[in-house]
Amino acid sequence: MYTCDVKRMDDKIKTFSKFGDAGHGGITRYSLSPEAHQARAEFVKRMTAIGATIETDDMANMYATIPGSEPGLKRIVMASHVDSVKNGGNYDGILGVMGAMEVLETIVTEKIPHRHPITAMIWTNEEGSLYPPAMMSSGVVCGKFDKAKMLASRSVLDATKTFGQALDASPYKGEEKNRLNPNDYMAMFELHIEQGPVLEAAKKDIGVVTCVLGMVNYRIRTYGQADHAGTTPMSYRQDALYAAAQVLMYLHQELDKLDPALVYTTGEIKCHPNVHTVIPDEIDFSIDARHENPEVIKRVVEIIKSIPREVAKCKTGYELAWSRDTVYFDKELVGFVKESADELGIPNQYINSGAGHDAQFVSYMLPTTMIFVPSKDGHSHCEPEYTSTEQCTAGASVMLNAVLKTDKKQ
Amino acid sequence: MYTCDVKRMDDKIKTFSKFGDAGHGGITRYSLSPEAHQARAEFVKRMTAIGATIETDDMANMYATIPGSEPGLKRIVMASHVDSVKNGGNYDGILGVMGAMEVLETIVTEKIPHRHPITAMIWTNEEGSLYPPAMMSSGVVCGKFDKAKMLASRSVLDATKTFGQALDASPYKGEEKNRLNPNDYMAMFELHIEQGPVLEAAKKDIGVVTCVLGMVNYRIRTYGQADHAGTTPMSYRQDALYAAAQVLMYLHQELDKLDPALVYTTGEIKCHPNVHTVIPDEIDFSIDARHENPEVIKRVVEIIKSIPREVAKCKTGYELAWSRDTVYFDKELVGFVKESADELGIPNQYINSGAGHDAQFVSYMLPTTMIFVPSKDGHSHCEPEYTSTEQCTAGASVMLNAVLKTDKKQ
Repeated sequence: MYTCDVKRMDDKIKTFSKFGDAGHGGITRYSLSPEAHQARAEFVKRMTAIGATIETDDMANMYATIPGSEPGLKRIVMASHVDSVKNGGNYDGILGVMGAMEVLETIVTEKIPHRHPITAMIWTNEEGSLYPPAMMSSGVVCGKFDKAKMLASRSVLDATKTFGQALDASPYKGEEKNRLNPNDYMAMFELHIEQGPVLEAAKKDIGVVTCVLGMVNYRIRTYGQADHAGTTPMSYRQDALYAAAQVLMYLHQELDKLDPALVYTTGEIKCHPNVHTVIPDEIDFSIDARHENPEVIKRVVEIIKSIPREVAKCKTGYELAWSRDTVYFDKELVGFVKESADELGIPNQYINSGAGHDAQFVSYMLPTTMIFVPSKDGHSHCEPEYTSTEQCTAGASVMLNAVLKTDKKQ
Repeated sequence: MYTCDVKRMDDKIKTFSKFGDAGHGGITRYSLSPEAHQARAEFVKRMTAIGATIETDDMANMYATIPGSEPGLKRIVMASHVDSVKNGGNYDGILGVMGAMEVLETIVTEKIPHRHPITAMIWTNEEGSLYPPAMMSSGVVCGKFDKAKMLASRSVLDATKTFGQALDASPYKGEEKNRLNPNDYMAMFELHIEQGPVLEAAKKDIGVVTCVLGMVNYRIRTYGQADHAGTTPMSYRQDALYAAAQVLMYLHQELDKLDPALVYTTGEIKCHPNVHTVIPDEIDFSIDARHENPEVIKRVVEIIKSIPREVAKCKTGYELAWSRDTVYFDKELVGFVKESADELGIPNQYINSGAGHDAQFVSYMLPTTMIFVPSKDGHSHCEPEYTSTEQCTAGASVMLNAVLKTDKKQ
């Protein structure tokens, strides 16, 4: 078994944390921003230093490749992203890029034999924080998103600026022929932080990811009557917020009877007219529900559809905003990850991903899987996001050995 | 008994509805806007036509006065406002001005004997829709608000513009010595629509207003933990919106045990970060509660303070935003209104005002009272606001006779 180097990983974590440092432990590093370009330049510098060849594609995705010993074989790629959310942490995304670099550095430094070319890759704009949507470039490359629409995506900070303009201005915009594709690549790995509390609570350092959870996202609405707070007796009221609170309690009550692995979230609520002296006449809130088993998701939808048509004298309604089926990762690659963690003696467990990742789009194109490492206190997308350097390195070591197992395939 | 004229009232309603006509049955007529100045010019035209003397004060409040038969007596004033909320109706505020005009027109036309001078008055900026706060000028004249602060109030549509600038630009800005004051005025009446459904439901055409309800306005807060919607098992969550829904249900449950005349409203809710994929970490909602009896309001506050400190693993908190005591109107004037309605044979009942009005500030300075007429379906501050011309005229007739009863006092 081979292992990666904790000191070298630590140096990478410290270095990359500077690019977009927000001054209190975290970073803001929007895709294609000057800070993200600093991170990309560091990637080029370190990958060039070990003799890797750098390529970029038309979405500014970046590929650093070291050759294998047998000509004509497909590449094995390890990919993640360098962009962050606003005031994000030092691990989400960038860990997968640092891990990929660390694997290549270990292979080159230790002169580890391998037959296939091996690539470390950066996906552009995974977060979609400045230019929505999330997973933009993997969506384009894997045929899920229309490129022209993505180029027209407007900055959430300045609607006069588009993603296409940012891409044109980037020194890393390359050619479409360099895109990840199933003719030139045989498999993709993505190392990522868990972004939840499961591994830490179970005292496991590695999560062997089996799938990205299927989900549904609905809007729930209640319709009342806007009247004056002071002049309308209680018995005359149709209070849409009171109705919404009852619907929300009903959803919790019914959904909590389903499988305990179900997660559901009412994260967004809009109130109209939202004035303290007026009875609300419309509430609109989101419900996002995720589970591996489509039968459970089907039950969730049934419960949403079972909301009484009238609650507290208010009409109710629902609308499907979007959904996705569970995306299962490649069984053989999942097995390689599990074997590698076991052989390295690292405490591990199977886990699913409740969050979306570039890997979910890539899995429609190539055999793909993911490796998770713990998130302290489950925090993510915030500055306290933390994974110890040892755990980060363990993740890279597992990825290294899983890549080498993949390399042994024909 | 004297009565006002339905046809003349109908003409006023139709005429004033043009000033700020929003094109679908209602008006937008912000204070000191061109549309409000059209309404003021119409007031001047009609009041000059009956021989009234026009005065304006430093807040652009307007006074049209007809003399009485005995020299040296104080004036009796009937006052309301011509400004509206955005997309408001044709009755809130302006009815009280049209009613005051109608009373003076009836007195002059019918040559009704009266000893005191009688004044029809326009209060500037009652709604505070463009330049907050509401009841701005009565607040200044009655010593509740600081004039300099009011002059500095910024337009909600254009923060570079102040109320003071609008006032300076108005042809109706006059002198401070012309302000309503207890040396020159003996009583004030305000005719207004009910803005609620009580009179219509009771089939009464007149509400004899006894008080403006005391109220408290609190902010209720719940504090959770923002975590990822997909990666955080339900058992780990601190969902501030789920907690807020429970608190809201608790408040309804407990407050509904109090006096049935209590009205309370949770009209405004803020959710942070309000993203459909993130568990909310802070909810802030308003609760506005109104009742005549301070003991009931005290119980409301006790219930707010009895919210458990922790709900659904979230901390809770509350903060008093503002409050007012119940303002009782002058008993003798209330009696004159009741007698006038009874003597005219108009179905009537005592009622309180859940909404605030200029009369509540004036009642600290002068004997004051209000007269309500029904609001169809209880609607107000919206374009469907409606009171029949007959009901509007009945309100003016009651005010006329109550003024004449007041006129008989020494």
